[in-house]
Amino acid sequence: MPYRFEPGRIYRMPTHFGPAPGPRQMPAEAKGDPTKSPRKTLISASFLTEGSALERHIPERFTLAGDPVVTIEFHYMTHIDWLAGRGYTMIHVWWPVVFKGDRDRVIGRFLAVMWENLADPIITGRGEIGQPKLFADIPEPRLMDGVYHCEASWMGFKFLEVQVKECLEQDLAPTLQLEGTLMLKYVPRTGAWGEADICQVSFTPAISPNLTVESYKTASGSVTFHRAAWQDLPTMYHVINALADLPVLSAHAASIATTRGGKSYLDQRILE
Amino acid sequence: MPYRFEPGRIYRMPTHFGPAPGPRQMPAEAKGDPTKSPRKTLISASFLTEGSALERHIPERFTLAGDPVVTIEFHYMTHIDWLAGRGYTMIHVWWPVVFKGDRDRVIGRFLAVMWENLADPIITGRGEIGQPKLFADIPEPRLMDGVYHCEASWMGFKFLEVQVKECLEQDLAPTLQLEGTLMLKYVPRTGAWGEADICQVSFTPAISPNLTVESYKTASGSVTFHRAAWQDLPTMYHVINALADLPVLSAHAASIATTRGGKSYLDQRILE
Amino acid sequence: MPYRFEPGRIYRMPTHFGPAPGPRQMPAEAKGDPTKSPRKTLISASFLTEGSALERHIPERFTLAGDPVVTIEFHYMTHIDWLAGRGYTMIHVWWPVVFKGDRDRVIGRFLAVMWENLADPIITGRGEIGQPKLFADIPEPRLMDGVYHCEASWMGFKFLEVQVKECLEQDLAPTLQLEGTLMLKYVPRTGAWGEADICQVSFTPAISPNLTVESYKTASGSVTFHRAAWQDLPTMYHVINALADLPVLSAHAASIATTRGGKSYLDQRILE
Amino acid sequence: MPYRFEPGRIYRMPTHFGPAPGPRQMPAEAKGDPTKSPRKTLISASFLTEGSALERHIPERFTLAGDPVVTIEFHYMTHIDWLAGRGYTMIHVWWPVVFKGDRDRVIGRFLAVMWENLADPIITGRGEIGQPKLFADIPEPRLMDGVYHCEASWMGFKFLEVQVKECLEQDLAPTLQLEGTLMLKYVPRTGAWGEADICQVSFTPAISPNLTVESYKTASGSVTFHRAAWQDLPTMYHVINALADLPVLSAHAASIATTRGGKSYLDQRILE
Repeated sequence: MPYRFEPGRIYRMPTHFGPAPGPRQMPAEAKGDPTKSPRKTLISASFLTEGSALERHIPERFTLAGDPVVTIEFHYMTHIDWLAGRGYTMIHVWWPVVFKGDRDRVIGRFLAVMWENLADPIITGRGEIGQPKLFADIPEPRLMDGVYHCEASWMGFKFLEVQVKECLEQDLAPTLQLEGTLMLKYVPRTGAWGEADICQVSFTPAISPNLTVESYKTASGSVTFHRAAWQDLPTMYHVINALADLPVLSAHAASIATTRGGKSYLDQRILE
Repeated sequence: MPYRFEPGRIYRMPTHFGPAPGPRQMPAEAKGDPTKSPRKTLISASFLTEGSALERHIPERFTLAGDPVVTIEFHYMTHIDWLAGRGYTMIHVWWPVVFKGDRDRVIGRFLAVMWENLADPIITGRGEIGQPKLFADIPEPRLMDGVYHCEASWMGFKFLEVQVKECLEQDLAPTLQLEGTLMLKYVPRTGAWGEADICQVSFTPAISPNLTVESYKTASGSVTFHRAAWQDLPTMYHVINALADLPVLSAHAASIATTRGGKSYLDQRILE
Repeated sequence: MPYRFEPGRIYRMPTHFGPAPGPRQMPAEAKGDPTKSPRKTLISASFLTEGSALERHIPERFTLAGDPVVTIEFHYMTHIDWLAGRGYTMIHVWWPVVFKGDRDRVIGRFLAVMWENLADPIITGRGEIGQPKLFADIPEPRLMDGVYHCEASWMGFKFLEVQVKECLEQDLAPTLQLEGTLMLKYVPRTGAWGEADICQVSFTPAISPNLTVESYKTASGSVTFHRAAWQDLPTMYHVINALADLPVLSAHAASIATTRGGKSYLDQRILE
Repeated sequence: MPYRFEPGRIYRMPTHFGPAPGPRQMPAEAKGDPTKSPRKTLISASFLTEGSALERHIPERFTLAGDPVVTIEFHYMTHIDWLAGRGYTMIHVWWPVVFKGDRDRVIGRFLAVMWENLADPIITGRGEIGQPKLFADIPEPRLMDGVYHCEASWMGFKFLEVQVKECLEQDLAPTLQLEGTLMLKYVPRTGAWGEADICQVSFTPAISPNLTVESYKTASGSVTFHRAAWQDLPTMYHVINALADLPVLSAHAASIATTRGGKSYLDQRILE
């Protein structure tokens, strides 16, 4: 007898061996605790760019919101419950947008691209959430003379460097009230090359009641994307080069934070 | 102005930076040559198991075909054109099946699970083709006293070991005429946990006119999957344990081959 | 003109490009600060074994001191000044001994073996200090349900697992007053196989005035060395198997600490 | 009873667990076969530089011999017997010299520096042979449009790139008759900083009767060393920068070869 899908359980490819354990479906023995997991060092820098340049990289039904500021965040995570206490690192690149759909209207972070240094959350995040995750080697941050050096590379090509230093000057810019994070879940249609089977706006509400910010420091920072040839980054040179081509008009807010806790994104939903 | 998707071009998440370079969409400068790329050492072993045990791991509309033989293949690849000459390794686990759909009827390899040691082809293969690819660390094969030792692990947990030794006895078992490779492309529905947005039978025709087998040797081999606890393999212990639980009734055909050339899978299609 | 060695400067192979930068010879721009570098999480466990078994693994002129207790320490280090802010991990295995030389008499830790997950400090430590360092893959510790899981492997063979959990019961055993750390610096003689060019007792005084212990917790722990075949660990199976063969009579003190600062070991000296 | 060193056996730190298995001391079960192990792809390129620049990087008692040509070799090895069938990669950098000692006079390759991507042979080679080995990440060569791309990096900093393409023009330059390979074995003296415990000229005779060259093709090539800041390569920026500063007057011979077999270097000896 072939297997049948159990109702109400999350599956991923390969589906043939039962429901798939992961961040949103942990076995009982995992004892996940969203108030404690993960521990995170979050290093962030941002820059002001030209709206017209940024606009070319948002999908239809989106418009830029507020200043065209690109933020790069390095999330160095440890003690992740669904990985049985292991860690990995995420990079987020986002800017503020408004989404106006037929039903929904949301102002939020447009999550343009992510990199992670572990394949497992890339697989779960792309399929279950629609996060635009790619792989990169991301070493631990270097701390030298008070400066955090964060970087990412692929097969020996360093494509992103961020430097952040604690700095007492407060960033007083009025900030938009962002309702959450927006992304475009997209899966191509097999065989009908150029068509899509899934092309949806996916949304993570901002609320995260189990998250504790343990420390937060304002900082100053700089961001550099290094242009790549096809042979340097054969699956993503177009992404890096588009980001490298954004004019850096000025550095914006940066920060260094440590946090504890988080959420499983079971509140993720598709907007219309 | 937000961007629009260019018609006829393949996109992947993130879609915001243009069509995605990859195995099925190479830039002109790549000069892909399917008669030369990739070079491959293909080490394969198989075992006879119980049909009733195997049947639990095939989806509806599939039935087992011929003997219930599970084959494990290690494809050690180098000089891959779409990766600008780099290499990586794939593992395929398959057994013979018949698919009977409303329209299509195909006898072929049921590709139950794959592992690869590079995230990029995992991302392209899952999204564009529907291959059930997971990540593993896969070192180069060890050759000692004429025995090839192939293995795969995840974060230090070795879950698969295959040993293969050249052996002159010919394997004379009559083999099924397999028309290609079958897999289940599955993408969960965001927010509607437990439902699927995509659940399709995806098919790779067997034909590969640019493939040259440069050497082929029959061999004898053994296969061992090591059972894992959740904390050893928190995203795939259920896969490994299901495979480890298949009774090994006897060793079947094994082989050691070297090949050159391949195809881009643009002939992949969805069965109905 | 061939080069000449500059007097008073430390060299390492290759010597042909000038004095060698490293932990004991940093360029001025490095701004090393021994009160801040490195940051360390130190996880330690120990066990009581049989003195007669341990005695076989100490050199001549050494005797065991106090209880035959083997301690395993994992030093997870970050922000190391001489590595420009990078980190790496050390494992120490030691037990208490007395060294009685012609001139010196010292009671201290006998550093039987070390593992590190970075080649550079292995090279500097073996050559400049005489530390018995070998290479291992050492992932970040996993923290699950309050238990730290520390491990080490080589090419996929996990040879050491240590689990440590915070525990309020104080370890009240009277401890020896250890004057520092003792090791045997040994370099074989090229061509005269079986002879030694260097065979010296090297000593690190315990004093480390720039070290700050930021937190310290008593704990309970367990230690497991996994026996290896030659083909698993072809350069060090004899080390692992000797340690695995030590009887574990009972668990002894364990701890979890965080520290800041350290020293460069310029006070290292040869005993006689 | 403390242990005693067994006469005639090779030891390495840590010496406390018995004689050390390695390339020159394999257990019986290893069944080393120097006619088959290792298999090697050897990619080589060279360039003519200024003798006066090169001379600054040879020790006393050495003089340059013939043209001041620097050769860089990448030895991609697999199926190494003493590693139980595993592989790793070596890089050699050498130029021709004459050594005139009190007793010995040898014309040979001056092995200025080596890099390897595995710590174990670094440890054995430095201690037993005196090879000036450092660690680097060395990926498999990329082959694209007939060009082999070889490279080496450390913690994400790419310091060496070599490109080699098969080329029928024969290199007809008369070549020196080299008797073997020369290196300086150097071990600093612990505690007496700036002094040396070992400073010897170590020599590998050229003879290697079990080596079979299976293919050999002349080629043309290019070599690039990338200058590094201290923070890029904190333990070896001085080495890279010295090599990067050598003027490249013209490209010289390059080659692509595959070989089988080798030797254990038990014929290594100290010159005087």
